Amino acid sequence: MKIICLQENLKNGLNVVQNIIGKNLTLPILNNILLITDKKQLKLSTTDLEIAITNYIICKTEKEGGITVPARILVNFINNLPNKKIEISIKNNIIYLKCDNFKSNIKGLDIKDFPIIPKIKNEPTLEVNYLTLKNALEQVINFTSFSDIRPEITGVFFNFSSDKEIKIVATDSFRLGEKIIYLKDNKINKNNQGSVIVPGKTIQELIRILSNLEKDEEGLVKISIENNQILFNFSKIQIISKLIEGSYPNYQQLMSKQFETNILINKEELVKAIKLSSFFSSKINDIRLKIDSKKSLISIFSQDIELGENLSDLQAEVKGKDLEIIFNHKYLLDGLNSINTKRVFIGFNGETSPGIIKPEGDDSFNYVIMPIKL
Amino acid sequence: MKIICLQENLKNGLNVVQNIIGKNLTLPILNNILLITDKKQLKLSTTDLEIAITNYIICKTEKEGGITVPARILVNFINNLPNKKIEISIKNNIIYLKCDNFKSNIKGLDIKDFPIIPKIKNEPTLEVNYLTLKNALEQVINFTSFSDIRPEITGVFFNFSSDKEIKIVATDSFRLGEKIIYLKDNKINKNNQGSVIVPGKTIQELIRILSNLEKDEEGLVKISIENNQILFNFSKIQIISKLIEGSYPNYQQLMSKQFETNILINKEELVKAIKLSSFFSSKINDIRLKIDSKKSLISIFSQDIELGENLSDLQAEVKGKDLEIIFNHKYLLDGLNSINTKRVFIGFNGETSPGIIKPEGDDSFNYVIMPIKL
Repeated sequence: MKIICLQENLKNGLNVVQNIIGKNLTLPILNNILLITDKKQLKLSTTDLEIAITNYIICKTEKEGGITVPARILVNFINNLPNKKIEISIKNNIIYLKCDNFKSNIKGLDIKDFPIIPKIKNEPTLEVNYLTLKNALEQVINFTSFSDIRPEITGVFFNFSSDKEIKIVATDSFRLGEKIIYLKDNKINKNNQGSVIVPGKTIQELIRILSNLEKDEEGLVKISIENNQILFNFSKIQIISKLIEGSYPNYQQLMSKQFETNILINKEELVKAIKLSSFFSSKINDIRLKIDSKKSLISIFSQDIELGENLSDLQAEVKGKDLEIIFNHKYLLDGLNSINTKRVFIGFNGETSPGIIKPEGDDSFNYVIMPIKL
Repeated sequence: MKIICLQENLKNGLNVVQNIIGKNLTLPILNNILLITDKKQLKLSTTDLEIAITNYIICKTEKEGGITVPARILVNFINNLPNKKIEISIKNNIIYLKCDNFKSNIKGLDIKDFPIIPKIKNEPTLEVNYLTLKNALEQVINFTSFSDIRPEITGVFFNFSSDKEIKIVATDSFRLGEKIIYLKDNKINKNNQGSVIVPGKTIQELIRILSNLEKDEEGLVKISIENNQILFNFSKIQIISKLIEGSYPNYQQLMSKQFETNILINKEELVKAIKLSSFFSSKINDIRLKIDSKKSLISIFSQDIELGENLSDLQAEVKGKDLEIIFNHKYLLDGLNSINTKRVFIGFNGETSPGIIKPEGDDSFNYVIMPIKL
């Protein structure tokens, strides 16, 4: 192999693929990045055997070839070079890099020992605007569970059952976020309707990579599914991941449309009051909300027997029954922080039923939160 | 006690004093901040028994009094209040705080159980511009030792032996930084000439607090010494600290004025090349510098048998003998990062003697670095 590429292109390409690489002691080649020429492009690939990421960058190819190189040292070295041309060549599984007055060689491993990156040949199930997808995933990703006891809720649930919308859901059984993307021109391929659970780590990588893309309002992510694998394909990047097997909780029963107590309240004021209350809450993070419809008031109270207590009174539009209800302040804040509107709607059906928080005048996002029963 | 103060004043005051508080399990009152009225001011104090910090803030005093309050919850609560008036009152060792629509009470401990904050009555040994002092301390603070084996080098050495200058020194025995502050109008009090070793933690606090001060080019720090204690007094703030006993290494012998090899080189280029080299250095962080006076070249080489190798060539003004010398890249970078000039002077006296790095055309800062002998 002999190629020439720009430092910035190679740096950006490595940044796309390098993040899933950890420190794999049993299979050291997984710590490497695969570099292989593909006509006028250099293909960069990594895998942790669950996820594989590939990115193509532009280069001038003088001689075809490939190698796998330890990710950490390659990334460190390339990141710190000036943005000039880099000459790359390979001899005896050693990669030679030359840029400006800096020269390095790094020992690699043969490409024949690198795991095969799987391919998906199916037509895409759907295409979705990349910014819409990124924003939707960001709204729910923090609600997945970290416990291996129920692997199905460590992932993000994608429901493609309708041809007009995608439902994206995450929960850890204490709270749940559901975001609906309404599709415009790009309908879901009828042959591929259904639902899948994508590992949380894959979604985090997808968000990270989409966030680093240059803004392209028109850019589309093509999503294909085949043999328990999912492919996200966009902008010279392919992320392919195993799916989580198992059935996702039937959460629809938690999502009431009718509420005994209906509240509209300024989001920032509510966040501030919950934060202040959180410092005084006990070890189970409990804070008490008291809703008074006559006074149009929400009082937030917390108490720690050793430290002291806190009370905040907030004005709100309240309709329906008065109520006292207890929540984990962390889960309340997580939900509110996923919402961008100035005011939020909050609906309750008594002190033991789940509450719902959503943006004012927007049904596309619902945050369901279980109360604490003392 | 009953007072009214502005949230911003109290927040800033707490920020000055709160940082030395950790989690003291044997003497819980050390986790508290002392609040006590002093005419039209509120005095805030903390101590870890090594350092004590006091800060006065403006308030409207309706009734005198005092209390000690757990630092963490008080700071968290005050930081998150809006910038409005806070009403503070005390009853039965509970502090009651009211701001806008937020109310809290926090359980405190009686002021009579709080350790006595020591006082220094001596006249200041010297006064020094706060920005000059802060910059000087920042240049050397990272070179102190963390090992308890030689407590004297865990501190920063202040030498007030001349009445015209202060020498400020830090070392961990592998490298040493010396900064000289040349005094103008403010001479050192002749009765108090001598030298002291101030704990690194005290200097870090002093830097942190000076960095958060509003810029006051004329501001002075008064330094007083008495009974193995030092006082830094400025802007309504007093930091009083124990000194480290013991004698500081006689480092002057390391500071050559004459060199066999003299180099002037662009600092940023040198930093970049050392950084690139560092990725390929072995476990002892060694990189090799080869100085060639005929070619006006410094070559930087590093090699890790498992990973690969790196070579960078840099143009430089070189006078004197050619040389090959090995350094720890971390210590080289630390020294260069303490220097702000575009070019640096580097002087060597053979491959086994310490090298010196200093800003071009400025003798007030010297960085001494020991070579590695393989």
